[in-house]
Amino acid sequence: MIGNLMIDSKYIEKSWPETIQLWHGHPTLAAKNIMTPDQCNSESLVFVSTQAQLELALTKNPAFVISHQSLNLPKTSVTIFKTSNIPLAMSLIFPFFDQKMIRFSQEQNVHPSACVHPSAILASDVTIGPFASIGAQVTIGANTIIGASCVIENEVCIGDNSLIHPQVFIGARSMIGHHCEIHPHTVIGSDGFGYVKDKNKKNLKIPQLGRVIIGDSVEIGANVAIDRATLTETVIKSGTKIDNLCHIAHNCIIDEDGLIAAGFLVAGSTQIGKRFMTGGNSVVTDHVAISDDVTLAGRSTVTNDIKLPGAYGGYPLLPIREHLKVLASYVHISEIRKKVALILKKLNLTNGE
Amino acid sequence: MIGNLMIDSKYIEKSWPETIQLWHGHPTLAAKNIMTPDQCNSESLVFVSTQAQLELALTKNPAFVISHQSLNLPKTSVTIFKTSNIPLAMSLIFPFFDQKMIRFSQEQNVHPSACVHPSAILASDVTIGPFASIGAQVTIGANTIIGASCVIENEVCIGDNSLIHPQVFIGARSMIGHHCEIHPHTVIGSDGFGYVKDKNKKNLKIPQLGRVIIGDSVEIGANVAIDRATLTETVIKSGTKIDNLCHIAHNCIIDEDGLIAAGFLVAGSTQIGKRFMTGGNSVVTDHVAISDDVTLAGRSTVTNDIKLPGAYGGYPLLPIREHLKVLASYVHISEIRKKVALILKKLNLTNGE
Amino acid sequence: MIGNLMIDSKYIEKSWPETIQLWHGHPTLAAKNIMTPDQCNSESLVFVSTQAQLELALTKNPAFVISHQSLNLPKTSVTIFKTSNIPLAMSLIFPFFDQKMIRFSQEQNVHPSACVHPSAILASDVTIGPFASIGAQVTIGANTIIGASCVIENEVCIGDNSLIHPQVFIGARSMIGHHCEIHPHTVIGSDGFGYVKDKNKKNLKIPQLGRVIIGDSVEIGANVAIDRATLTETVIKSGTKIDNLCHIAHNCIIDEDGLIAAGFLVAGSTQIGKRFMTGGNSVVTDHVAISDDVTLAGRSTVTNDIKLPGAYGGYPLLPIREHLKVLASYVHISEIRKKVALILKKLNLTNGE
Repeated sequence: MIGNLMIDSKYIEKSWPETIQLWHGHPTLAAKNIMTPDQCNSESLVFVSTQAQLELALTKNPAFVISHQSLNLPKTSVTIFKTSNIPLAMSLIFPFFDQKMIRFSQEQNVHPSACVHPSAILASDVTIGPFASIGAQVTIGANTIIGASCVIENEVCIGDNSLIHPQVFIGARSMIGHHCEIHPHTVIGSDGFGYVKDKNKKNLKIPQLGRVIIGDSVEIGANVAIDRATLTETVIKSGTKIDNLCHIAHNCIIDEDGLIAAGFLVAGSTQIGKRFMTGGNSVVTDHVAISDDVTLAGRSTVTNDIKLPGAYGGYPLLPIREHLKVLASYVHISEIRKKVALILKKLNLTNGE
Repeated sequence: MIGNLMIDSKYIEKSWPETIQLWHGHPTLAAKNIMTPDQCNSESLVFVSTQAQLELALTKNPAFVISHQSLNLPKTSVTIFKTSNIPLAMSLIFPFFDQKMIRFSQEQNVHPSACVHPSAILASDVTIGPFASIGAQVTIGANTIIGASCVIENEVCIGDNSLIHPQVFIGARSMIGHHCEIHPHTVIGSDGFGYVKDKNKKNLKIPQLGRVIIGDSVEIGANVAIDRATLTETVIKSGTKIDNLCHIAHNCIIDEDGLIAAGFLVAGSTQIGKRFMTGGNSVVTDHVAISDDVTLAGRSTVTNDIKLPGAYGGYPLLPIREHLKVLASYVHISEIRKKVALILKKLNLTNGE
Repeated sequence: MIGNLMIDSKYIEKSWPETIQLWHGHPTLAAKNIMTPDQCNSESLVFVSTQAQLELALTKNPAFVISHQSLNLPKTSVTIFKTSNIPLAMSLIFPFFDQKMIRFSQEQNVHPSACVHPSAILASDVTIGPFASIGAQVTIGANTIIGASCVIENEVCIGDNSLIHPQVFIGARSMIGHHCEIHPHTVIGSDGFGYVKDKNKKNLKIPQLGRVIIGDSVEIGANVAIDRATLTETVIKSGTKIDNLCHIAHNCIIDEDGLIAAGFLVAGSTQIGKRFMTGGNSVVTDHVAISDDVTLAGRSTVTNDIKLPGAYGGYPLLPIREHLKVLASYVHISEIRKKVALILKKLNLTNGE
């Protein structure tokens, strides 16, 4: 494996005392990989959430274990840390083993095959991969990486410490913030879908003159399409995370800290509040407004404003508890229909007339 | 901003008298941008559809306003045009501000980094972007633009005045018409999904030997996949517009002037008539025929032929009015179930037996 | 057309006697194309499944016909073969007319514009297209083709005889088997969608340190995204075929010989058994297990384990026969509701109270 990955237990002990505490052991060991309880070895750091995982891990004699604090923790030769929040502990420690920055090796910061317009301004330590095209008057912030075969059109502005994976498209005049990550084959700034019928029912295009603005710490998955606004801006605000194969139409505004699972589709000019969460393949229609702190079940369909925070699901959209009740009754619809026919017969009501 | 964009009011007055008429003002002014009423400045052209927008715009003293004719129009120092159709007026004027053709700057028509097969035939004023690959016996019509990192395989034929955005894939022997526009990461001519089970239930591939034919004035969004036919042709006819993240399977024929919103999926060998319209994420099964002038609500599911023009929705698909009635009753299913149980009890019918 | 395609009837007669038998004619002829009955000519091989197709084909005097054996076959001047399985016969004969390997012409095995890391190991007869980026310590097996503008990150391993179409992304440390085919704009090894909320409800990323493993004879369509595992492996086992625009989340395991239609989405850590089949746009939630030999109707939604083989459909998911019954009754929900109201009135039950 390329790269020299390692974390020592002393560092862990000192770094996040609120989240991870040493329970027992030798705080000078170092781990060279992170592995699951069944695949770990003597150089592994292992996270365990259940007693069975803990016991399995201990049989492998790993470098050390980070255990949920609720488990029954033994004092053995294996060094054990405890935490009240395993995913949070993972988010703190996994970065030490993330080879993302060296997934594609190159010797120069700007690969000699890249096509960088002379008017583009690259801050210090920008990496540009092979066959990337960087347009006129583009600016790219410090430490940002542009992957192989990316196309960055004219006047795009990208902040510091962002990672644009290979083959991403960023259309003219888009703005991308700091600490963003965009995965391959995502399109930022394709045209919005705007047409008007002429008198012969032919579709005339309304050119899309606006742009896309993406805040800080936004992550966007693979094969996502975010359309430029008609005149103004399609906006994804800071902290929002978007999974693979999503579609954000022109003029939409998605506020901060959203968490949007794969296959989400939102039509034009819709506004979505802060901390929006949705399961997979939800759809939101155009020109609606969704309040802050709304959570949708997977496959929800939103066709009206959502004015109150809360959890919702289904189509038509209902508060989540009603949605679940409706789903539970829905599967009985065939027998309900039969029963109603029976009752009508018993009552001598001819088919409900 | 790159490029010198401008339109003067005299030009507007003369060009589309059926659609846009001068109401009051100085028809010699020029606008340098198009903006929304809240963001406009003294160099802006502003479109307004409501009285509130008009009043807001006038406070900014824009270069001129194009207003819906139904509004109460004042005679002020601001030049005002009126129209009976705002989107149509937009489709006429926005092109003057569309910088699409210069979204990526390059000095030569064919970028020196492009890989163009010597047998390819490029008409006059074809632009080929950096790192584009153009195969053998490809022909590309006058004024057509092929963006950076596009891959155009052997024997593809593309018409005049088409815009193939960066990173598009056009597979061997596809034909694309005139005045088409295809957005990044779209795939034209991937293999159809054709397999047969052998006696061991293994999937054997049926190679896909056909191609894709796309008419004139077709627009295709980002991350769309259109599969080549098994033997013949998958066809998208002239004037049809397809939004992002759609899938058109092998052997399908979509007739003229369709308007297909994002997330549409159609399975193999289906035929769709003229002026088809659908909301987002509709699905059409294989081997069905849809008549001309059919409109589908978003998330519709079509599993049978649609023989009559009209609007439809839901799954099972129903005429739109029935669909809306069913949706309205569906949310009451849980209480209906309870009522039926109550009635059965009152009538001493044991659970409907 | 580029390439010299041909098959002679003697070869057909000898090669697959279990599947294709000569019925009547001259087994020394050769066909130069495969066409449908309506488009065939004197050099065509034609497959026919119905009597009408057969009769139509015979009027065109094709080189020869492969007919389903159940048809009423004449003894004419046209050579006729018979088969009990037309799709199987197609899968055997179509490869002779598949020009896939020459869809993009290049003279050298490794195109001089490609960027291949010196530590990459290419077996004999590997083809690398223009502008492909091949990372450090990549290994590529014999006869495998890497298309134009592909990005293959460090330490990827690809087997023999695989076809990676242009513009595919294969992320660091992925493994791809032998005889695989991956279509354009597909992403293998994007990050899984893993976050944890901090105490301020901000989303913290859990870096995704695992990889993707793909078996032999797997085919993956266009614009698919398959995420790398959090720590271990996302796995697509041998023989599985995945259509366009699908999403496979981190840690999923899809067993052998699946057949997955377009728009399929599966959330994290789900396990799917052998010979899984689904219609278009089905969704499976995270952390469920699906047994071997499960078939889903299109647009199914799976939210729980499926423990028994069989066909299922709908949301909530039901055995297929129940699903179809429910669908049939669902469209009557509005009239059922009215009938229940009528009955309550007749029985003097105030609204079911």
